[in-house]
Amino acid sequence: MKLLRHGPRGAEKPGLLDAQGRIRDLSAHVGDIAGRWLLPEGLAEIAALPVDSLPLVDASTRLGPCVAGTGKFVCIGLNYSDHAAETGAAVPSEPVIFMKATSTIQGPDDPVEIPRGSTKTDWEVELGVVIGKTAKYVSEAEALDHVAGYCVVNDLSEREFQIERQGQWTKGKSCDTFGPIGPWLVTKDEVPDPQALDMWLEVNGHRYQNGSTRTMVYGVAHVVSYLSQFMSLHPGDVISTGTPPGVGLGLKPPTYLKPGDRIELEIQGLGRQRQQVYAAE
Amino acid sequence: MKLLRHGPRGAEKPGLLDAQGRIRDLSAHVGDIAGRWLLPEGLAEIAALPVDSLPLVDASTRLGPCVAGTGKFVCIGLNYSDHAAETGAAVPSEPVIFMKATSTIQGPDDPVEIPRGSTKTDWEVELGVVIGKTAKYVSEAEALDHVAGYCVVNDLSEREFQIERQGQWTKGKSCDTFGPIGPWLVTKDEVPDPQALDMWLEVNGHRYQNGSTRTMVYGVAHVVSYLSQFMSLHPGDVISTGTPPGVGLGLKPPTYLKPGDRIELEIQGLGRQRQQVYAAE
Repeated sequence: MKLLRHGPRGAEKPGLLDAQGRIRDLSAHVGDIAGRWLLPEGLAEIAALPVDSLPLVDASTRLGPCVAGTGKFVCIGLNYSDHAAETGAAVPSEPVIFMKATSTIQGPDDPVEIPRGSTKTDWEVELGVVIGKTAKYVSEAEALDHVAGYCVVNDLSEREFQIERQGQWTKGKSCDTFGPIGPWLVTKDEVPDPQALDMWLEVNGHRYQNGSTRTMVYGVAHVVSYLSQFMSLHPGDVISTGTPPGVGLGLKPPTYLKPGDRIELEIQGLGRQRQQVYAAE
Repeated sequence: MKLLRHGPRGAEKPGLLDAQGRIRDLSAHVGDIAGRWLLPEGLAEIAALPVDSLPLVDASTRLGPCVAGTGKFVCIGLNYSDHAAETGAAVPSEPVIFMKATSTIQGPDDPVEIPRGSTKTDWEVELGVVIGKTAKYVSEAEALDHVAGYCVVNDLSEREFQIERQGQWTKGKSCDTFGPIGPWLVTKDEVPDPQALDMWLEVNGHRYQNGSTRTMVYGVAHVVSYLSQFMSLHPGDVISTGTPPGVGLGLKPPTYLKPGDRIELEIQGLGRQRQQVYAAE
């Protein structure tokens, strides 16, 4: 299934995409794409609904973030071998973990804000993993049992805030609008191999990133198992698994977003995001 | 006011501490110590309630985290001049920011878990700031208008995970049970000067930390204003403002928590936490 949330910001309703690509409303049957609805039983309940009788939603309706109730937005750094090579960094001997504020989360096509004082706002197309069932000390073999599905994430990053402003990466990763997720939460039954997905990102029609999850260093099952050794993962938590080459920081010369830019990004089978860039007032 | 949340884990009800130190239940009047109830108007509504007619709650009732709906648990690193001197680190030229997972949050007296494989689980008594009103690009002069109040935080930290395991501090800061907050959210009217609070922490009756928020490098108003330049702060967000000297990492030789240890910590006017330490199964 392709689950989604539609409607105005902060008042989204649950929905899904039908086989014809139309949005159907789920609010008569489902509380939200969150919490218990992400458990295997919750997803099975949704899957059993008669799709053709669900109300149609206007195709021009805004999409919100594809999952609600996200307690943690955890990211893996330097997790593509070709990206590490591009930046001259060594592949880490174990996953690098950092957090984005959950207040960064927004819909896939909501505009992206360049923060005040920023000159280095950058893009990163990433495979997002949505947790479906609490995971603590799970093995790699069990890990995917705890995954509800996958989505596109744009892990927007302010490189000066991230790297040049004392200490940890948090400052450059947590700005408002820096976490578009969606358009859909694609349940894992529709993604037989999360390590074989093409992905790309364009700015103003120029393709900067053109990669595949095949070059991910630590794959989804490893990352979920690894993270669960350090913290419990809960339904609705999102893990963003790192980016392939072609971010602005890695270009010669480095190239960053400016107001008016249009970003498009897609991952095979997971849909496309489109963002317009503006400057914070 | 001293606001609190009482009852079993995950089913806490809102309450307050009356002038005689008894717990009173607020659930007939207040949704939760969260969201709109933290706004100035929400706190004024609570303050107008007839305290003496609120139901009494048994004094032995478990206390939960003193605030709910925390979207972000943001921490400031190396923020006490005497702690920086102790560890030989320079005082940072601007605040160091990192995040704890919100899944670390628990009641003030809930037991603390040493994670599997940990040999360096450490303590940190810290002044917690609870946001009451959304803050974005606020000045230092305006910052305290966005604060609902203060609480005690134990910023438990696994030093090997934090420092020796590749990359960011997140791994050592986000383990389950590593974020006791409370016992109370003390509204700011009862804390005339947050930069003049004595604070201490003991393990098994030995006092390891004995400090004061007077030696905080970047004070509460500065920290709130500074953070709001990088991300919006929302009602219920908690900022932990750093720790004074005396953490286990800084002792010679370093000393860490072990199963069976009893931690007690207190900040002047904000109450005391008591935690029993156990090992993860």
